[in-house]
Amino acid sequence: MTQNLVSTINIDWKPDKTSKISLSRQIVRYFIQKISQGDWIVAQKFPSQRKLSEIFEVNRSTIIESLDVLSSLGIIESNFGQGTIIINTTWSLLISNSPPNWQNFIDSGVFKANSPTIQSINKLEYVSGMIRLGTGEMSPDLIPHKMMQKVLHKVTERSLNMNYLEPLGYIELRVALCKLIAKRGIHVSPSCILIVSGALQALQLISLCMLRPHSTVFVETPSYISSLRLFQSAGMNLCGIPMDDDGIIPWMINKKGSPNETSLLYTMPDFQNPTGILMSEDRRKELMYYCRTNNLPIIEDDVFGDLWIDKPTPFPIKAYDENGIVMYLGSMSKSLAPGLRLGWVVGPESVIQRLGDVKMQTDYGSSSISQWALTEWLESGFYEEHLKVFRSKLKERRDLALRILNEHYHDIASWSTPSGGYYIWLRLNKNISTDKLFELALNEKLLINPGSLYDSIKNQCLRISYSYANPQDLSTGLIRLAQLIRGLND
Amino acid sequence: MTQNLVSTINIDWKPDKTSKISLSRQIVRYFIQKISQGDWIVAQKFPSQRKLSEIFEVNRSTIIESLDVLSSLGIIESNFGQGTIIINTTWSLLISNSPPNWQNFIDSGVFKANSPTIQSINKLEYVSGMIRLGTGEMSPDLIPHKMMQKVLHKVTERSLNMNYLEPLGYIELRVALCKLIAKRGIHVSPSCILIVSGALQALQLISLCMLRPHSTVFVETPSYISSLRLFQSAGMNLCGIPMDDDGIIPWMINKKGSPNETSLLYTMPDFQNPTGILMSEDRRKELMYYCRTNNLPIIEDDVFGDLWIDKPTPFPIKAYDENGIVMYLGSMSKSLAPGLRLGWVVGPESVIQRLGDVKMQTDYGSSSISQWALTEWLESGFYEEHLKVFRSKLKERRDLALRILNEHYHDIASWSTPSGGYYIWLRLNKNISTDKLFELALNEKLLINPGSLYDSIKNQCLRISYSYANPQDLSTGLIRLAQLIRGLND
Repeated sequence: MTQNLVSTINIDWKPDKTSKISLSRQIVRYFIQKISQGDWIVAQKFPSQRKLSEIFEVNRSTIIESLDVLSSLGIIESNFGQGTIIINTTWSLLISNSPPNWQNFIDSGVFKANSPTIQSINKLEYVSGMIRLGTGEMSPDLIPHKMMQKVLHKVTERSLNMNYLEPLGYIELRVALCKLIAKRGIHVSPSCILIVSGALQALQLISLCMLRPHSTVFVETPSYISSLRLFQSAGMNLCGIPMDDDGIIPWMINKKGSPNETSLLYTMPDFQNPTGILMSEDRRKELMYYCRTNNLPIIEDDVFGDLWIDKPTPFPIKAYDENGIVMYLGSMSKSLAPGLRLGWVVGPESVIQRLGDVKMQTDYGSSSISQWALTEWLESGFYEEHLKVFRSKLKERRDLALRILNEHYHDIASWSTPSGGYYIWLRLNKNISTDKLFELALNEKLLINPGSLYDSIKNQCLRISYSYANPQDLSTGLIRLAQLIRGLND
Repeated sequence: MTQNLVSTINIDWKPDKTSKISLSRQIVRYFIQKISQGDWIVAQKFPSQRKLSEIFEVNRSTIIESLDVLSSLGIIESNFGQGTIIINTTWSLLISNSPPNWQNFIDSGVFKANSPTIQSINKLEYVSGMIRLGTGEMSPDLIPHKMMQKVLHKVTERSLNMNYLEPLGYIELRVALCKLIAKRGIHVSPSCILIVSGALQALQLISLCMLRPHSTVFVETPSYISSLRLFQSAGMNLCGIPMDDDGIIPWMINKKGSPNETSLLYTMPDFQNPTGILMSEDRRKELMYYCRTNNLPIIEDDVFGDLWIDKPTPFPIKAYDENGIVMYLGSMSKSLAPGLRLGWVVGPESVIQRLGDVKMQTDYGSSSISQWALTEWLESGFYEEHLKVFRSKLKERRDLALRILNEHYHDIASWSTPSGGYYIWLRLNKNISTDKLFELALNEKLLINPGSLYDSIKNQCLRISYSYANPQDLSTGLIRLAQLIRGLND
């Protein structure tokens, strides 16, 4: 191997300006081809951006775009002052050549629009001193540590089976979950429940087992799922359906698309992410009726169901499901502790069996220790006890956020009062760029989630989360953010 | 909905006997089409098998095959005496229509050959009184329960961060793993390690991120991976490479296929599953040399590395990897406790970042409690202590198995002495059907793993595992099995 030979790559090609393929895409392909053929090797240098733009006879921005893609694939690395070098060939080429989903991902516009913001947010969350106004997670001080220690002590008194558990998950946990959801009108046997590592894994399994590329998934607009790459990676089409104060509007489904036998609907009726909207009881029944008559299966994501603040939520849609058309997802990540990594899917037994089979092929089941711990939480009554405390603390934080909004945002934004969950959906009156606001806020160590993460079209919205920042940070942060918004022009 | 209307379905179609598509496949498609169009509904009855075979003018066995597929898809259910009825339409049709992998799965021969045996084994493992001679798992009495209780107690003394952990996994665990693998010659930083939920998940992530359909994965023949559907579901081609006593033979790779830039090699150098072969140190270096010069990336699966019995294993191939072409997989499922559901991948940082990003999109990371527990196991020195005990117990069981083989199998089979791991690969002298032997053994409550699970071609081999059954069961079972083999004719 000739890794010590550091030279500049030799370019004898130009992109075809008459081609339908974008110039930057052509350039990326050319680079990958040269490296995969072994013409260029690790440690070789690239010419400067200016030089590349001369050689290829394209704009500097096209060069930057192409290098960004190569860099995100781990093929090159740019150091200020030292230029761009090739850092990896073998594996990075597999990555870039291979996965149909990554390829789609890069080819589609999604890569440019959403992902950098999400990636930035993920990294910036670990920067100390950052006030996180958008994080959809429990504040560390809201997680019941003392109770968790008690629970783990009690777990050690159980007879611990450390072999693989049953394919659907620990039977005692499934029994305990049956009791939990029965309180909300869902009556099923343990064989209709699959334990998963969080609701996200449930969505992943469903997309692996049940959706085919180009099938349509109807979602609320805006929706959390729009920021998930997993459906997009699998080639699904998301079709956004508008909401009013009662939730998603079923009769808009036929106007927006035509459901067929491969479509399904994803909905979050309780304190929807990101709008915080609670679907009314009547709307739940209407939606159920619409989906039943149109044979449109429903994925009901109910991770916030236990987190009502003002009064208990209506029964889930699944409670009205007589024909087995609803798959019901729950999780402990929002209401107890993300680190447990546990959620569940409730559905017709045959589908649960199928999902369970694929889960076994994926990871042989979720952590036994986590499953024992959650069983103990539920059987001991600690979970209900914790919820009472948690709800009252969430109420304090929500009310604080609303007080500040009323005082500092009344003339620059509008919002609805959420009756539970984590989120307030803030609609700014001014027509300003929330991406620019994101950058400005960052300079002040404020981390916000712009509405563009949840919708394919531009909007002037922010998802404010009152669950994460401590009360002091929440008020300082929101007040400072209002000042920034005022300083921006339309 | 007209679910109460119970009638027999109306068939006005016959399969095309001149078509290239098999008769049973045509029949399955016809049934699915009728149900998806809404022509037939839940609770409707099918005619008897005899009647169906008259209507379609095909053999009874073709009918049975078609109904089996519909039944495994959860679309119909057969009750003895009451006939066959449609039990599900909405979701089951999504399943059957949709996923390209399930569809491939059904269309390919794999579905018929391997899967029923594996499914039977998975179910039969839960039948009480069964002697499990093939199970590749630790016996419950070999799992260190007392130590696990101590560890969990110590975990509660840690400051527990129950929020989501870093994308690559708990940093203290990754530091502890760096120390563990450094003892075997692998020197990397924690940023080159990704914590996963078992080695199987690592394979799943690799196939999602890095392999493209129709790319070739070179594997040892026979190999564990041949029984995994995940590579097959993703449309990979497995290409088997023969082994000798030193392991896989690198110079056979070019004879069997032509590696290109989308190929990779999967190998298990330590006590290979299912043959128990330990790759020699020289062979490891030869394989490394071959793969480096041919630019063929390696996935090294080393879940048995810590389970040597006679003397420590040579360094892993990864220890000789100067160019970052090896992805190294480890796990605690074979050496400590499957229920932890923890494994790890070691590789070039850029690839680890990519895999970690996809893992976050899949399940937001593995259980925090499991990760703390494993950190405690490693930091406390309990893991090393446990390994000493475990190795001596494995030695006892292996020696017992070998004694019985020498006494009862010397004239009916041949085998090699494994120097570690779980398995003895038994080659029967007689040319008998191991599938028939599987059935006969089952009647005697003996569960065995026929060699056909690990190879695409027929063979007269069995994978005997000495890790699971207790010593009494192991000897009774092996002796009874020898009698069954003697009773069978060529």
